[in-house]
Amino acid sequence: MDALKKRILEEGRVLSGNVLKVDSFLNHQIDTRFLKEIGAEFKKIFADCEVTKILTIEASGIAVSFAASQFFDDCPVVFAKKGAASNMSDDVYHSSLYSYTRRAEFEVYVSKNYLNEGDKVLIIDDFLANGEALNALIRICEQAKCELVGCGVVIEKEWQKGGERIREKGVRVEALARIASMDEKNGVEFCD
Amino acid sequence: MDALKKRILEEGRVLSGNVLKVDSFLNHQIDTRFLKEIGAEFKKIFADCEVTKILTIEASGIAVSFAASQFFDDCPVVFAKKGAASNMSDDVYHSSLYSYTRRAEFEVYVSKNYLNEGDKVLIIDDFLANGEALNALIRICEQAKCELVGCGVVIEKEWQKGGERIREKGVRVEALARIASMDEKNGVEFCD
Repeated sequence: MDALKKRILEEGRVLSGNVLKVDSFLNHQIDTRFLKEIGAEFKKIFADCEVTKILTIEASGIAVSFAASQFFDDCPVVFAKKGAASNMSDDVYHSSLYSYTRRAEFEVYVSKNYLNEGDKVLIIDDFLANGEALNALIRICEQAKCELVGCGVVIEKEWQKGGERIREKGVRVEALARIASMDEKNGVEFCD
Repeated sequence: MDALKKRILEEGRVLSGNVLKVDSFLNHQIDTRFLKEIGAEFKKIFADCEVTKILTIEASGIAVSFAASQFFDDCPVVFAKKGAASNMSDDVYHSSLYSYTRRAEFEVYVSKNYLNEGDKVLIIDDFLANGEALNALIRICEQAKCELVGCGVVIEKEWQKGGERIREKGVRVEALARIASMDEKNGVEFCD
């Protein structure tokens, strides 16, 4: 998505530790008009999938999922919540996830009320790096026995291999911008 | 807002400890179509305020703020992030907040890049109870020297007095549904 690549080049800041800051439009300040363009792009890609529900994870997946929902007949968005393993009850699906940012393992969970066997689920998130968040959401879909139509992410950091590993499992993963490499000196290089 | 009151009565569950669960449409599963109705309602109330930015707090304020933004000329949404006091740097506005749910104090912060002196800010959140979250966001607006046009919340738990205290300071606070009292046996009673 060219408009997205342009904004990453113009506004993104590469910080040490594999961090790309795009908080001027994606995950701190939200450019709602631009996120609707992103939502429309996900619709183009997953147009034929009869999506009934979008699944994401708090907090920065929520805005882009809300934007996308409007192009999928206002289907419900469910966001997985983060919590402590000790608090998980029988009425939730849950999966553990290692956060490289926080350097800690935690649980994500979804109420069993909001994911059902008949659902055709599109998972959406802002970033795909090591794939920890997507994998946790995929495991939750498996527990709920719903049909996973694919994963749409705004930005994939391709060299961190999370996307590759998920695709190898046969899950469709689509990224609107794929970054091949980046560093503080030379900035961002896209995959193609 | 009658449609909101109806959904609270039909879908809300009152749990012990002053908890009202409305996670079927507001803050776990998100009914994006209904949240747009809520957004339109905020526009009616704050129509004449020339809002340039919506400020909220992660995670459950994000969806309703996104929905509202579309009725305020797609103005940017900024969501305050939660973090540890030890991580606050010079380039953020921050304020501490006591969470009754988590029983802990933590910091919320907003990058100085995304709130400016000329901004006319509408603060939006899903719930108003003790007012801790709104107060933290109000203090951040004060630090940024932006103009606070008011606070819009979806559900106010009136008896917890947070709204009363904020209104006494001269801040405009509008709630789409005000709950006078609730308990597990008798359910919810609205203010008027």
